[in-house]
Amino acid sequence: MTDKVYGGIEAGGTKFVCAVGTAPDNLIKTQFATTSPDETIGKVINFFKEYVRQKLLTAIGIASFGPLDLDKNSPTYGYITSTPKDSWSYIDFARKIQNRLEIPVAIDTDVNGAALGEHVWGGARGLDTFIYLTVGTGFGGGGMINGKLMHGLLHPEMGHIRIPHDWQKDPYSGCCPYHGDCLEGLACGKAMEGHWGQLPENIPFDHPAWELEASYLAIAIHNFICTISPQRVIVGGGLMKNPGLMPAVRRKVELNLNEYISSDAVTKDIEHYIVSPALGDMAGVIGALELAKTINQDV
Amino acid sequence: MTDKVYGGIEAGGTKFVCAVGTAPDNLIKTQFATTSPDETIGKVINFFKEYVRQKLLTAIGIASFGPLDLDKNSPTYGYITSTPKDSWSYIDFARKIQNRLEIPVAIDTDVNGAALGEHVWGGARGLDTFIYLTVGTGFGGGGMINGKLMHGLLHPEMGHIRIPHDWQKDPYSGCCPYHGDCLEGLACGKAMEGHWGQLPENIPFDHPAWELEASYLAIAIHNFICTISPQRVIVGGGLMKNPGLMPAVRRKVELNLNEYISSDAVTKDIEHYIVSPALGDMAGVIGALELAKTINQDV
Repeated sequence: MTDKVYGGIEAGGTKFVCAVGTAPDNLIKTQFATTSPDETIGKVINFFKEYVRQKLLTAIGIASFGPLDLDKNSPTYGYITSTPKDSWSYIDFARKIQNRLEIPVAIDTDVNGAALGEHVWGGARGLDTFIYLTVGTGFGGGGMINGKLMHGLLHPEMGHIRIPHDWQKDPYSGCCPYHGDCLEGLACGKAMEGHWGQLPENIPFDHPAWELEASYLAIAIHNFICTISPQRVIVGGGLMKNPGLMPAVRRKVELNLNEYISSDAVTKDIEHYIVSPALGDMAGVIGALELAKTINQDV
Repeated sequence: MTDKVYGGIEAGGTKFVCAVGTAPDNLIKTQFATTSPDETIGKVINFFKEYVRQKLLTAIGIASFGPLDLDKNSPTYGYITSTPKDSWSYIDFARKIQNRLEIPVAIDTDVNGAALGEHVWGGARGLDTFIYLTVGTGFGGGGMINGKLMHGLLHPEMGHIRIPHDWQKDPYSGCCPYHGDCLEGLACGKAMEGHWGQLPENIPFDHPAWELEASYLAIAIHNFICTISPQRVIVGGGLMKNPGLMPAVRRKVELNLNEYISSDAVTKDIEHYIVSPALGDMAGVIGALELAKTINQDV
């Protein structure tokens, strides 16, 4: 390991991954379950404090579940805001870590973090406009447009777009507490569980649940392609572990777009247009580490 | 008029607007119906040629209907590509004008042009991430993200997202030749005409057609807000001339989002968040003029 290293925290609703290092092949990492904020942040501090004491650590980046307040002029900058996740609502997340370790901390959404990881080290190298989607317990989306991570008014909430819901084929009413049958309400892991009465990882690969899932994801990706015109679409998350899902999604996106988007990338080479994260499950924590490197830069 | 002026062309499927000048209050303009490419481009040349001869004109910007090829490395850069509009398909639009007038020409989509106009002179001053929608014969969307106009793989085709279609309430199957009942297929002027058997401008303001139209536009804007997180949404186009439509759209967007996007801009001040173009019908041609000013800049 080089002298100066960075810290990265992938803060998920289920687990935290922490790492110190400089690059994907130069990392020390650990992970633990997400419990109460006090206990979880305590474990984060414990992991990093020896590196801080030895003055090895330059900065820490956090790629976090949300929603987050990312407005640097806001009094609640760096907070996790109105999350339904017990006891994490309105937690002063970034500042707690910054204050206890006395080191600069950068924060962004988990999906923007993963997008940055893919941009620097993975499947989005050389691109300035692409999106990163994750389909797990929830549905998240972020990315980079015109060379910078997506922010705007707050940050994207791509899981909450409305999509066609064929009630005859799919009588499940959706699980989103805000919108019922929005994209996340119909297609996230929690929705699969609500719909089929079992965890997605226990649903056999040839169960019709996956055909429906592919249809919803394909509509969502169609919408994101038409809205943003990304140069690539990266799709990660636990549900994509079903090896049949990605090919089914690609086929349906191609069918749905119906050659309207007249680019060879979509019409002739969709295997390289809609892809898995090149960094796999490491995209988030590597992206968090890259966020740390961006402190004082305009990314 | 100052010595050095710019030219702007708003190239629409129905009419062309051409202008020379430097600013909204310093313009000479003309307009004519869009007919064949030869005849229409002939009129464009006639309008500008005297300014060129007198060496008053620095450059011309075109804000055009599409789809367009905007890839500067492509052999068909500046072409109108696969438009269903008779005889305009695969027309070498930008270069024809550039070659005949011997002056630099910039080209972008009509909606990106209008967005740039609003950014420099109108309702998007000071913002770096916003969208511009137009609801007329068709449905178009563009805008600026992270301070640059939206491009990516090609350019946005926001009219072609899929939205929920309640067949019981609305048995019309949609007019999009590619996707049937996509957003444009259900909610553009041509769709209103197909559905109700009369031109939208002849449908009384209190007809239920407008309630349905407001519902579709609200879902679309909800989706764009969740996907991009714009700092403002500007909505122009002929259909918005119905004075009841904008307030109905705002109310429905607020209801649909259901306070999920926790920003005062959306929850407390939606009148200033979803707005009409400050430049009104002039946004397009003024934006085209601004495009001319960007030649050799990275916008």
